[in-house]
Amino acid sequence: MKFLKIPAATITRLSIYSRALEELADGQVSVVSSKKLAELCGVNPAQIRKDLAYFGQFGVRGVGYYVKELLFDIKKILGLNKEWRLAIVGMGNLGCALVAHENFEKQGYSFVAAFDADPMKIGHRLASGLEIHSITHLEEICRETGAEIGVICTPPERAQEVANRMLSIPLKGILNFAPVQLQVPECPACKVENVDFTVKLDNLAYHLTAG
Amino acid sequence: MKFLKIPAATITRLSIYSRALEELADGQVSVVSSKKLAELCGVNPAQIRKDLAYFGQFGVRGVGYYVKELLFDIKKILGLNKEWRLAIVGMGNLGCALVAHENFEKQGYSFVAAFDADPMKIGHRLASGLEIHSITHLEEICRETGAEIGVICTPPERAQEVANRMLSIPLKGILNFAPVQLQVPECPACKVENVDFTVKLDNLAYHLTAG
Repeated sequence: MKFLKIPAATITRLSIYSRALEELADGQVSVVSSKKLAELCGVNPAQIRKDLAYFGQFGVRGVGYYVKELLFDIKKILGLNKEWRLAIVGMGNLGCALVAHENFEKQGYSFVAAFDADPMKIGHRLASGLEIHSITHLEEICRETGAEIGVICTPPERAQEVANRMLSIPLKGILNFAPVQLQVPECPACKVENVDFTVKLDNLAYHLTAG
Repeated sequence: MKFLKIPAATITRLSIYSRALEELADGQVSVVSSKKLAELCGVNPAQIRKDLAYFGQFGVRGVGYYVKELLFDIKKILGLNKEWRLAIVGMGNLGCALVAHENFEKQGYSFVAAFDADPMKIGHRLASGLEIHSITHLEEICRETGAEIGVICTPPERAQEVANRMLSIPLKGILNFAPVQLQVPECPACKVENVDFTVKLDNLAYHLTAG
């Protein structure tokens, strides 16, 4: 399946639509108007129609969207109709919080391997049953477990080295929580997404100041 | 100071520029070319010039940017030339990870109050010295401590209720980590930013599938 060049913001919104549709499906709602769906997602109805139009024809005029059908289609568009296998490095507070976060599993993301450099943590088993391995075995265990996406929760000064090793395995994607901009080659084979909490806070601070 | 309507992506990039400039300043670098700064931030030099042009004239032709000067100016633009006081609700794994995260303090964000509903946690003191208070005292303690921004780390089903209470205090902004789209009135007095880890993962999954 080959797509047009889709705006990144559209992909982000599809993801938000899928969350809302999941909640509706959980609540046994079978049909939703575009107005109601838009309200739940904090956008306007025209935006939803525009975003979906990139991928085909969805919904029924005068009726709205069939919840389960649209959810299925959006998940397929996003590539979420399969399980994604994650390897996480850095089992401090944040790493443990992520592994315990129920939403990953719910969305089809499975942590299949966890790593740390601290001898006190290595060998320890998390509540989920996942064992913390030494970072020295990163390549080997990622291959064994079929990890596809690497999650980096290390201190900032270790993140680039870990990313380099993940790229060399190669993992297909990296989700980086370390507060540092990773230097990665421009290659479609590995995509990096940065999650920086303080960047979001800066957005808030700007709006509270300039608003 | 009144600004033009600035694209949200520009604000996000300013925040990323400030991280890079901070690292340069820490490393005693006093001048940086726009090419080098762009490289560090994963953008092209024209993008930096374009983003900064919204706010005035920066940098010296043929020289580049004075690191400390530009950092100061960007922080001022973002409203980071002051301390922002944060109140956090939900002291599970994630809440504790955030309070312990050194980057907040470094960027001028201070956690001044922490809350939970679990009697086992209330009264407990975090490594930072912050005490966990009962959520029943949210309004009172937020006022006492001068909290300006609320951080929500509760389970999704509790997030809306907490947000409503924060809005009624009123706090000026909310950073929401709960995986749910908050319903908030469209008012410039309170701005909400959502941080959803799995939305970032969905972005990755999409690119790895459609790429």
